[in-house]
Amino acid sequence: MLTLFHAPGTCSLASLITLEYAGADYVVHKVDFSANEQRSPAFLALNPNGRVPALQCARGVLTETPAILLYLAQTYPAAALAPLEDPFALAQVQAFNSYLCSTLHVAHAHRVRGSRWADDPVAIEAMRRKVPESVGACFALVEAHLPAAGWVSGAQAGISDFYLFTVAQWLEGDGLDPAAYPKVIAHRERVRALPAVQKALAACGAEGAGGLSVMPGVSP
Amino acid sequence: MLTLFHAPGTCSLASLITLEYAGADYVVHKVDFSANEQRSPAFLALNPNGRVPALQCARGVLTETPAILLYLAQTYPAAALAPLEDPFALAQVQAFNSYLCSTLHVAHAHRVRGSRWADDPVAIEAMRRKVPESVGACFALVEAHLPAAGWVSGAQAGISDFYLFTVAQWLEGDGLDPAAYPKVIAHRERVRALPAVQKALAACGAEGAGGLSVMPGVSP
Ligand SMILES: N[C@@H](CCC(=O)N[C@@H](CS)C(=O)NCC(=O)O)C(=O)O
Ligand SMILES: N[C@@H](CCC(=O)N[C@@H](CS)C(=O)NCC(=O)O)C(=O)O
Repeated sequence: MLTLFHAPGTCSLASLITLEYAGADYVVHKVDFSANEQRSPAFLALNPNGRVPALQCARGVLTETPAILLYLAQTYPAAALAPLEDPFALAQVQAFNSYLCSTLHVAHAHRVRGSRWADDPVAIEAMRRKVPESVGACFALVEAHLPAAGWVSGAQAGISDFYLFTVAQWLEGDGLDPAAYPKVIAHRERVRALPAVQKALAACGAEGAGGLSVMPGVSP
Repeated sequence: MLTLFHAPGTCSLASLITLEYAGADYVVHKVDFSANEQRSPAFLALNPNGRVPALQCARGVLTETPAILLYLAQTYPAAALAPLEDPFALAQVQAFNSYLCSTLHVAHAHRVRGSRWADDPVAIEAMRRKVPESVGACFALVEAHLPAAGWVSGAQAGISDFYLFTVAQWLEGDGLDPAAYPKVIAHRERVRALPAVQKALAACGAEGAGGLSVMPGVSP
């Protein structure tokens, strides 16, 4: 049994969708950001970095979206979540995911988490102002990279699709015009239509009280 | 034959060391940051993101340090660069590397690359001022995580060691007191003493003209 520490509206949605799509046996602990639960001693004992996602496994806790997604792809090979047998194609998937993690997600975080990188309120406001430009440049790169139909990598949906879908939730909120990213938006609709994605969003997409809740779904 | 696009003093050192340690057949193209070569049309055709590292392989170009390191670990299994046979241990390695990439490296980048996230010079200066605190918090987490002796993961040096060594080069320049991170500093010395690291630093550690240069070393 795996436990995902997840907060609605955040990057941990990618891990949630992947668990659901893989048919994993898991429960979700919704971390209550409104009460700063991610900085509670109990949560910091799980992830000293104070962030979601964190995935509690029998052998310990895994953090970092690209690492969790690869782990799930390797643990549930029947779900064909990544090209595991082809190291070059797998590296392309990991490069895509690492770009979302280290560049696109980070640009987005300057909208509401500017205090990580500066104390001056004027600086925090200046960061917020640049988000449409910096996040927009990232989505423009993704747009250029994306195929016009189908999935990020290969013939089936996989971890990069769930991760891109997750960060593409933020597009309008970051002040971008969806019309400028037609392939990203069409891809977002394709991913949203997948039954596992519907299920994950219905169960845990919305804000709600923290605590442990068993996901309905394909599990166990 | 692999070609690494590398700039001295940057995160691409981790890929360089890994190539050398693995005994790969490779050449290095030093990207001349002083001439903004990373934004030249020729380089953007390789990596539209305009960053190093980029690794040109027979099948295409790979980017993003965590992806390149995993690819090299999988391609040169005899070098035992990562616990490839144990998905959970591998996920811990990838989580560590992703943290360096998306959190520690990003905090560091606010010292000289603040213009990615704000235009206002006052904001850029405010970001620079917080670097000792934000990067210091990252190294404090790494310090707590590191074993007192040996390597980040397992009984041998591997990709996480080369990556940590690389970012630990920045510690003093980021305004941190090395005495506060004794395990990180001792680890840095252990990694520096490895022959492959010595060779990589001697050949490509220093600033120099751009262009293609064959690495001397273990490669045929
Ligand atoms: N690099 C990490 C980033 C995780 C992260 O930043 N999570 C955010 C939500 S999207 C968070 O937990 N923020 C809480 C906070 O900053 O207090 C990953 O990709 O998993
Ligand atoms: N997430 C990327 C980051 C790459 C990156 O930021 N590289 C820097 C050097 S450490 C760079 O090329 N900067 C050039 C620029 O910003 O113009 C990775 O880990 O490979």
